[in-house]
Amino acid sequence: MQVTFIWHEQIDGRWSQQQKQVTTTGDMTILRLAREHDIKIDATCGGRGRCGRCKVVVDGLLNEISKVEEQLLTKEELARGIRLACYARPLGDIKASIPTSETELLQILTEGSEQAVAAAPDIVKQFVTVEKPLLETPDGDRERLLEALEQSGQKDCQIPLQIMSGLPEVLRKEDHQVTVTRWGNHIVAVESGDTTGELFGLAFDIGTTTVVGGLIDLHQGKELAVAARLNGQAAYGADVISRIEYASNGTSQLRRLQRAVIDTLNGVAAEIHEKTGISPNKVCRVVIVGNTCMQHLALGVSPTYIARSPYTPAFSNRFDVKAGQLGLAVNPEAPVTFLPNVAGFVGGDTVGVVVATELAHQKGRILMVDIGTNGEIVMSWGGRMVSCSTAAGPAFEGAQISSGMRAGEGAIEFVEIGDDIEVAVIGKTQPRGICGSGLIDLVAELLKVGIIDETGRLQDAAELQGLSPELLKRIRLGEAGNEFVVVWGEEAADGSDIVLTQRDIRELQLAKGAIRAGTMILQQVLDIKDEDIDELLLAGAFGNYIRKESAMQMGLLPQVPLEKVRSVGNAARVGARLCLISQGKLEEASRLARSMDYVELSGRPDFQEAFMNAMLFPQITCESAR
Amino acid sequence: MQVTFIWHEQIDGRWSQQQKQVTTTGDMTILRLAREHDIKIDATCGGRGRCGRCKVVVDGLLNEISKVEEQLLTKEELARGIRLACYARPLGDIKASIPTSETELLQILTEGSEQAVAAAPDIVKQFVTVEKPLLETPDGDRERLLEALEQSGQKDCQIPLQIMSGLPEVLRKEDHQVTVTRWGNHIVAVESGDTTGELFGLAFDIGTTTVVGGLIDLHQGKELAVAARLNGQAAYGADVISRIEYASNGTSQLRRLQRAVIDTLNGVAAEIHEKTGISPNKVCRVVIVGNTCMQHLALGVSPTYIARSPYTPAFSNRFDVKAGQLGLAVNPEAPVTFLPNVAGFVGGDTVGVVVATELAHQKGRILMVDIGTNGEIVMSWGGRMVSCSTAAGPAFEGAQISSGMRAGEGAIEFVEIGDDIEVAVIGKTQPRGICGSGLIDLVAELLKVGIIDETGRLQDAAELQGLSPELLKRIRLGEAGNEFVVVWGEEAADGSDIVLTQRDIRELQLAKGAIRAGTMILQQVLDIKDEDIDELLLAGAFGNYIRKESAMQMGLLPQVPLEKVRSVGNAARVGARLCLISQGKLEEASRLARSMDYVELSGRPDFQEAFMNAMLFPQITCESAR
Repeated sequence: MQVTFIWHEQIDGRWSQQQKQVTTTGDMTILRLAREHDIKIDATCGGRGRCGRCKVVVDGLLNEISKVEEQLLTKEELARGIRLACYARPLGDIKASIPTSETELLQILTEGSEQAVAAAPDIVKQFVTVEKPLLETPDGDRERLLEALEQSGQKDCQIPLQIMSGLPEVLRKEDHQVTVTRWGNHIVAVESGDTTGELFGLAFDIGTTTVVGGLIDLHQGKELAVAARLNGQAAYGADVISRIEYASNGTSQLRRLQRAVIDTLNGVAAEIHEKTGISPNKVCRVVIVGNTCMQHLALGVSPTYIARSPYTPAFSNRFDVKAGQLGLAVNPEAPVTFLPNVAGFVGGDTVGVVVATELAHQKGRILMVDIGTNGEIVMSWGGRMVSCSTAAGPAFEGAQISSGMRAGEGAIEFVEIGDDIEVAVIGKTQPRGICGSGLIDLVAELLKVGIIDETGRLQDAAELQGLSPELLKRIRLGEAGNEFVVVWGEEAADGSDIVLTQRDIRELQLAKGAIRAGTMILQQVLDIKDEDIDELLLAGAFGNYIRKESAMQMGLLPQVPLEKVRSVGNAARVGARLCLISQGKLEEASRLARSMDYVELSGRPDFQEAFMNAMLFPQITCESAR
Repeated sequence: MQVTFIWHEQIDGRWSQQQKQVTTTGDMTILRLAREHDIKIDATCGGRGRCGRCKVVVDGLLNEISKVEEQLLTKEELARGIRLACYARPLGDIKASIPTSETELLQILTEGSEQAVAAAPDIVKQFVTVEKPLLETPDGDRERLLEALEQSGQKDCQIPLQIMSGLPEVLRKEDHQVTVTRWGNHIVAVESGDTTGELFGLAFDIGTTTVVGGLIDLHQGKELAVAARLNGQAAYGADVISRIEYASNGTSQLRRLQRAVIDTLNGVAAEIHEKTGISPNKVCRVVIVGNTCMQHLALGVSPTYIARSPYTPAFSNRFDVKAGQLGLAVNPEAPVTFLPNVAGFVGGDTVGVVVATELAHQKGRILMVDIGTNGEIVMSWGGRMVSCSTAAGPAFEGAQISSGMRAGEGAIEFVEIGDDIEVAVIGKTQPRGICGSGLIDLVAELLKVGIIDETGRLQDAAELQGLSPELLKRIRLGEAGNEFVVVWGEEAADGSDIVLTQRDIRELQLAKGAIRAGTMILQQVLDIKDEDIDELLLAGAFGNYIRKESAMQMGLLPQVPLEKVRSVGNAARVGARLCLISQGKLEEASRLARSMDYVELSGRPDFQEAFMNAMLFPQITCESAR
């Protein structure tokens, strides 16, 4: 039988699709087969069915879906033909597409929902034949073009100055036949001849840490390429609050932050140009999601009062500008829309998630949690939606943790404790530290074996019973209380021990307490108990990476059965994309943002108590509860 | 009796009004009185009642208006209390205002018509109290401001990005009380506190040679200051056609011409700032008139096809942009309106003249001629208006004439021939050349004494009878036919003779032929004979300076009695000013431009013949006809 591998590769700076057909007898998993033929598939755990990273999109006859895949893949992923290469075995001729990146995977993941939304963007192209000028009628070029548009039913169109300056040449190049790109009555482009065949837009998600952009074919609603970069504002502070502080120092600081993120967006656009060969100048529509602060900074609007009670943004409804006003390197007349914000800390990104997950149209009691430095939470029931935001701090991103680090090469991202501790490291190198998902795993496992108690205290080795000497050896007295050695120095990249300190655990308790308290308050507002929750959606990249069991184990989330938990990936960006290809979705976003209730946690007397309770770890572990 | 002189003087770079009271017995003219007290009044002819330049605005009892003043001043000027200082004598206490410049005089001249137009600009200021933000309502600053505007009846207002960036601070500076400047539903400015007391606009006339601007108090419709500069585009060609050629070389050339005129406008605005102390940033409305080409260049829009048959402009209706888009150094959000163009060579300046002179509302048969490098002509009768443009060339500006020069210091601007020739020189220095008005005088006088015949031939001295030997001596054979020595070298600034050559006369014949042929065609179109013309308006600075008799003598204008001829000065700029202070006038300008018929002379088979006939000089002189 034949297996056709399909993947993307960068050759001479351009991305192109590669394909390789190999023959197999069906006794090998896709992962092993790929390795034999030097085809790269990412698998942190070495193919042991633990990391869940070796996702491939398959088409054809394969072995049955394994228990491990059922655990590590969502129903949605399974429904879309995604399998783990380490478990999937071909039983006939198959095709296996290997995602080159998480974003490409997300693209595949979300294709389904977008197919369902018909491509009907708010920007259109129209081929127009303009009257030629005559000696007797001294009408201007502009007036004759507008006349032609009016005859086709488009009244009161506006041609911006930028387009006017070259209009005489554009009109005459192809004998007064032009293609007009129109956004409402705003003319975005006038091109010689018939270019109605192509219409492109960009959807951006500006995260505090990462910026992701996708080029969309607006006729077909298809994503043609995706690129991601670190937000260039990182140099001015890791989190939203420190950036607001910096921007509040003065106009030049605000401008600097704006410049930094616009440069990032332009970098993403340039990379997409490299991948596709489609000139950014052909991009005539942009939709951007981001948290409220990121939106303010990208627009160069003062975010100062977002951070001061009563936490008022400068704008909350959707914001439309021209690309040229932002310095965005696409068609300068392209309208750029920032999705509406609900409040100072519930932004257009959350609205994007709500649009992408169709939260408002779901019948059940659904809780959506987007975990980041700020946790945005939305609880939906019967058409009513309530949102809040809670400051988790950067612990989940590995910051302010003694051995913490971002989820990059050398980060421990997976931890399992049996007789001793076992870790998986991103890039399979020697470990350099622990990232967020590794931390949650670690604490969850330490809770399971009792090394951490429900109050978060790291026990003394003497207090513990029935544990292996390897484990007990790892507990020692550090500078500020007990600490647990995750990796001994000799195995670590820089030769020093990787440890979890008592203080680290407190940081995590604060972070998870904030998230959990937020969900508790929203549940209270709508009077929904944990057991009544029908679905729990985890949004954002973090939601994709953490092990749900561990998150549950440490009490980050309400106690619901694991099968009710679903990762929806970077749903914010999917929301942006849907709004880009569908005027209906864009208008829905505004309606949703306006109708969504907002609970300001700092204004609630019951928040402090909820927070105190939520900092504790659950007394009963998931495992024992089953 | 007391005479109070009032004038403006530049002291330490700032203009300020000066005043001096002097005592007189009433035996002296105002001019002599002023000179005795070292007060400067311009009088080229030395007070001989010829140049008509010593105009003063008087208030109080004076001697009767003299014949000379009746000849040299228009009825309008006389009605507005303007007298010639060389003839006017106080008979009681009087005030005499001395205009510092032609533009200031025009301002005085046109004050009457503007007083009649109520100040009702299309831009308004509104004091607004905005709701303060609350913890429970996370509405943005923008949304609360828009809500306040909506409550006052202003729906769907748009706040531009530029204003958004500082809005949070502006709102909070004066306790959420702000003044909104609004142009339709476009917000132009938001200022802290109540600034409704002041509202300023700028009216510009962009001439091919000169740019004039006036700062207008939009509440009162009053002009606060005027400044003028040479159009910085002059370096790229003296006339419209050479600038179009330059701009057609490419985008960078077009941009250079745009930059040059915008710099000029900004220079004018800066000078006005100096004079008034009112910051350009407070200017939130601008109206610009200019010929079609000047408008294209100021907007950076390609004028290429204006110069090629069928002479199509890129736009003809009024053009609105934001000041910031042009780089105009006023409030960048200020709307800038260019008055509509009628055709490639009948521009917004002509529309401005029509608005200022209320041509459309006059009952009679009125001919308006604006003489420049291009002559724009409008014939109005019973609500119908027909316009045309005719290429006079730069002869009237002294170009392409052997001893020609611009109307600056050392230019002969006035010529009279008796037994010998007598000239008046601008600045009363030794003459350097002849300017347009001097040329017309000279040719008219030479026609009168027969030295030039009706075909334009400069006669040989031998053919002439009854002329003084001084005059005959001046006729000599030059390099290309006869020439006439206007000033002998010993009296001229550079020691060489100032002459009028046969070729110079031909140039003037071409120029005046073009203008006259244009008027003839329009008269034909409306079937109006010379004797049926009720009024002949001369617009533009040139119309102010030429002696009507001379213009008539040489057949530049239709043969109508002199009292039917009226100079309306820089009426184009007055039109801009009226449109700036009155939305009604601005809308009327668009209606007028659309309803005005246009005759393309080059498309008419009868134009060539009219032109040939019009090049001849009239057989009978004005004097002999009386």
